[in-house]
Amino acid sequence: MEQRIARSIVMAAHPVGPVKESDFRFETFSMPEPGENELLLETRYLSLDPYMRARMEPVKSYAPHLEVGDVMIGEGVAQVLASRHPQFQVGDVVLASTGWRTHAVANGDNLRKLDPELVPVTSWLGILGIAGIAAYVGLREIGRPAPGETLVVAAASGGVGSLVGQLARRAGARTVGIVSGPEKCSYIKDAFGFDEAIDHRAPDFEARLAAACPNGVDVYFENVGGAVFSAVWPLLNRSARIPVCGLVGQFGQAAPPGPDRLPGAMRQVLSKNLTIRGLLVTNYPELRPDFEREVVAGLKDGSIRQREDITDGFDETVRAFTRMLDGRSFGKSVVRVSA
Amino acid sequence: MEQRIARSIVMAAHPVGPVKESDFRFETFSMPEPGENELLLETRYLSLDPYMRARMEPVKSYAPHLEVGDVMIGEGVAQVLASRHPQFQVGDVVLASTGWRTHAVANGDNLRKLDPELVPVTSWLGILGIAGIAAYVGLREIGRPAPGETLVVAAASGGVGSLVGQLARRAGARTVGIVSGPEKCSYIKDAFGFDEAIDHRAPDFEARLAAACPNGVDVYFENVGGAVFSAVWPLLNRSARIPVCGLVGQFGQAAPPGPDRLPGAMRQVLSKNLTIRGLLVTNYPELRPDFEREVVAGLKDGSIRQREDITDGFDETVRAFTRMLDGRSFGKSVVRVSA
Repeated sequence: MEQRIARSIVMAAHPVGPVKESDFRFETFSMPEPGENELLLETRYLSLDPYMRARMEPVKSYAPHLEVGDVMIGEGVAQVLASRHPQFQVGDVVLASTGWRTHAVANGDNLRKLDPELVPVTSWLGILGIAGIAAYVGLREIGRPAPGETLVVAAASGGVGSLVGQLARRAGARTVGIVSGPEKCSYIKDAFGFDEAIDHRAPDFEARLAAACPNGVDVYFENVGGAVFSAVWPLLNRSARIPVCGLVGQFGQAAPPGPDRLPGAMRQVLSKNLTIRGLLVTNYPELRPDFEREVVAGLKDGSIRQREDITDGFDETVRAFTRMLDGRSFGKSVVRVSA
Repeated sequence: MEQRIARSIVMAAHPVGPVKESDFRFETFSMPEPGENELLLETRYLSLDPYMRARMEPVKSYAPHLEVGDVMIGEGVAQVLASRHPQFQVGDVVLASTGWRTHAVANGDNLRKLDPELVPVTSWLGILGIAGIAAYVGLREIGRPAPGETLVVAAASGGVGSLVGQLARRAGARTVGIVSGPEKCSYIKDAFGFDEAIDHRAPDFEARLAAACPNGVDVYFENVGGAVFSAVWPLLNRSARIPVCGLVGQFGQAAPPGPDRLPGAMRQVLSKNLTIRGLLVTNYPELRPDFEREVVAGLKDGSIRQREDITDGFDETVRAFTRMLDGRSFGKSVVRVSA
């Protein structure tokens, strides 16, 4: 092997306010050697996802969370560089919880061999990965869009939002996507079939959103929190459902001063019979087969589309992450670590 | 008929702050005469329920709401005084949406004949009425207490709370009831089998509640809102469920100043995978048969108990209502209008 040095990115500090480069630190280590029944992986692609921001919070959370000095967690597509494991050959491409590492030794557990002929391998990081399953489960278990209902989702050009829009449309709902800037507005209508697209940076964002939802909102797929949540809230219809999948727009913000909207929100929950339910990021193994069948078929016949925002080079990982968190990425964020 | 004058109670004003007697007005009218296929009802018992307070709010609500001058709505047990309807005889006892009236003419729709031998007829206003079905549906559809889990409910000596506690205990959950004062604390443990009872007027209420829930809270049956909600919130476990059935403790209070707890609450929904769902007061006809079978059987064999707080006299209706809203009633509030 030519490269004898492996690298990783650790969390150097819990972010205070927006994530910045100094919250991370690159580390190097000697290339690990696989022991018996182990294999050495070289990361090809790393997935960057909003949920990682949540794991960096210093607060208690039931989801695993990061301590200072921990390698950033995440999924990757990797290739087997060396194998002493009977079920894996050199050259196999696998989906793995690599974390933000160029190389890792694995024991074969929780690795999934990928068929590069089936769909592009990066699909397993996005539309077939955690983002996709979150969209699928959030709609199937909580959102349940019905024909003629209106669904709103933010970050609608991203990994979760784009699939939410496409699946809801397939279920017969009217879909309204919220994105940053006019370019993405056009794109999500053309590529993902959103009926309406709203730029949340527009000064009259709330009025535009209300105008785009003349019959109110039946499903708000909560993906960002913050100002979008506040704008959608008054539009909610009776019996509306809110799968809460992410709140990335809220992290790094000080607690708002007031008034305290929580008691009023609970009154709305009661008077409008709302459902608000948090969606843990897990693989939902029992729903995986249905999910993969539907999305793989859609990708192959072109009825489901994805857009990826691929950044080249492990060195760029942190910048790509902050770019995504700032809403400047355009599509599912992926880092190409090695070709 | 001796009495030629009928009476009703109308909402004279939308309440500002706590409900007061001047928000109501007694009116009299000539005894109505039933036309063909109609019948004349004399109210025996009127149900007083916290949801009526919500209907008095001037805000838009999807549930029917009261305008100034409307007769207060509600369920009653009535007796047929005169009948020109083929299916009802003089003397029949029926459950009806009488509103706060001593007499009413009905066309026979939405009346239910009651068998006074089966269970006490007032049961149909409480444990077998809207309060009971709310408890049953909230637990069955949303709360779903499992063996060993902890359930908390406030107003635990009242119509909803007492049945919530008994049904949850039957499902194997540990039950913690919140009430006003030490007398009710003893009572709900003895009569309804609550494992713990907490007086919300105790100065160290929050600490006592936390001590009573050493394994956290899996189901919070939201019945009152306000300070109880705030005390329960930090105790919620991962995947906790919150059926929102009432917020009576919150009405008539100004919006709290801040900080704004809503964004943080949504973060908890996400990180703890919480479910918060509003429960409309309806009859849930599809669940009625199961509900009635279980509760009637429990009442007859003594495994389900109820406590009623019966006030004598139509003149006392408003005072009984404010007493209930203040937490000074003890059991399901009922007015005995006529013997």
